[in-house]
Amino acid sequence: MPRYKLTLEYCGTGLAGWQRVPDRPSVQGLLEEAAFRFSGARAEVVGAGRTDAGVHALAQVAHVDFPQEYSDFTVAQALNFHLFEARDATSRDETPRRISVLSAERVSDEFHARFSATGRRYLYRILNRRAPASLEAGRVWHVPVPLDAQAMHESAQRLLGHHDFTSFRDSQCQAKSPLKTLDFLDVSRAGDEIHIRAGARSFLHHQVRILVGTLWEAGRGNWTSADVAAALAARDRKKSGPTAPPEGLYLTEVVY
Amino acid sequence: MPRYKLTLEYCGTGLAGWQRVPDRPSVQGLLEEAAFRFSGARAEVVGAGRTDAGVHALAQVAHVDFPQEYSDFTVAQALNFHLFEARDATSRDETPRRISVLSAERVSDEFHARFSATGRRYLYRILNRRAPASLEAGRVWHVPVPLDAQAMHESAQRLLGHHDFTSFRDSQCQAKSPLKTLDFLDVSRAGDEIHIRAGARSFLHHQVRILVGTLWEAGRGNWTSADVAAALAARDRKKSGPTAPPEGLYLTEVVY
Repeated sequence: MPRYKLTLEYCGTGLAGWQRVPDRPSVQGLLEEAAFRFSGARAEVVGAGRTDAGVHALAQVAHVDFPQEYSDFTVAQALNFHLFEARDATSRDETPRRISVLSAERVSDEFHARFSATGRRYLYRILNRRAPASLEAGRVWHVPVPLDAQAMHESAQRLLGHHDFTSFRDSQCQAKSPLKTLDFLDVSRAGDEIHIRAGARSFLHHQVRILVGTLWEAGRGNWTSADVAAALAARDRKKSGPTAPPEGLYLTEVVY
Repeated sequence: MPRYKLTLEYCGTGLAGWQRVPDRPSVQGLLEEAAFRFSGARAEVVGAGRTDAGVHALAQVAHVDFPQEYSDFTVAQALNFHLFEARDATSRDETPRRISVLSAERVSDEFHARFSATGRRYLYRILNRRAPASLEAGRVWHVPVPLDAQAMHESAQRLLGHHDFTSFRDSQCQAKSPLKTLDFLDVSRAGDEIHIRAGARSFLHHQVRILVGTLWEAGRGNWTSADVAAALAARDRKKSGPTAPPEGLYLTEVVY
């Protein structure tokens, strides 16, 4: 059956996350419903990463097999059409469209959205000002106390490379090994916002959010970069910072 | 009574616009409710501009009089606290906070948010790509056909200066005179988006949105810059482009 690679943008607000669950709209569930309405066949939509509830994507990647061949253009247009209808059936609210298919591309059967991926990149947005978020509510983590982006960046550099990231994985994480290679973790200020960009071949469950929660401790002056390095060395989840909320997190790119 | 200048950010989605109306949440209505909960006194909140339903603000300005003096910090913090509660009472949805008080400042009785203003600046965002908006749904105008930002900018320059803007005012516009001075109207591309920035001492009803709808005709190649200039000269609303939708419009600055 012809396989298509989909590049997806979505707003995670109000969604159960990537994974299909009963009775709540999820990215996978809405996409599978749209694919069924379009092709008439039930098929699994496989994503590169299972984003949590509330997490957004600028360019998530997935694949799906259809019973017949279509043009790339037809697949993208038809899924976008049916996604809007599927949204109405699943959730009765007046939320605008949550998922957009940026592009569809016919790929070989060997392409696998999850297993073929060689890199994942994330952006985490902190709104760092006194006033609460309004326009960006649900899209940023609001931190009212001033954060030192430079201190956060310096602490972040202590975490780069191949390590046992047990301190930065959720207790529910099902990965067999806590060993990961963190390629970059850059912190910069853009006006009222602090942007944290993270890249690795793959991440543990909640790893980016725990990294952000740990850098937050450094940013508000509670921890030195040596404390952050010690948290990594401890291989103990209790030694790292809190898990930052999902709404500031964006899956920005999947590399193949 | 002590007067305070408020600088406001808001997401216009789901709001009736600036002006208080019965039975629907509005920016003015939510602010007046929050001010009452805070001070115990009913007071009118006067805005620099009456934004339409669905229009957003990065820095709207308003003033309000309180029966007693408070610190600037207290006013901003208290209004933000009560805005969140007022939101719950007015609308039962789960929408996150819609309005944020960025700052409050004690001003003299001579300060008037509307009449003291010497300039208003707006941004209009067009999402110009094939795929529909998801993360930015309700915050941009989605135009799927390619637009030529350079042609739009050149057409825009024909509209600068002091003119009779009858072609660019809504039939409901209540301004006594159609004469306005357009200080700047700049069009530029930023990735998938086209940004239109407009500045004037004041604008007619729907003027920015009709300007954008007219530049859209130029951007997709339907109109030349001479056609745009002719639309202005005609002093006839039927000769200009359509009124662009409200959701792409942001009040970005009020100058005093």
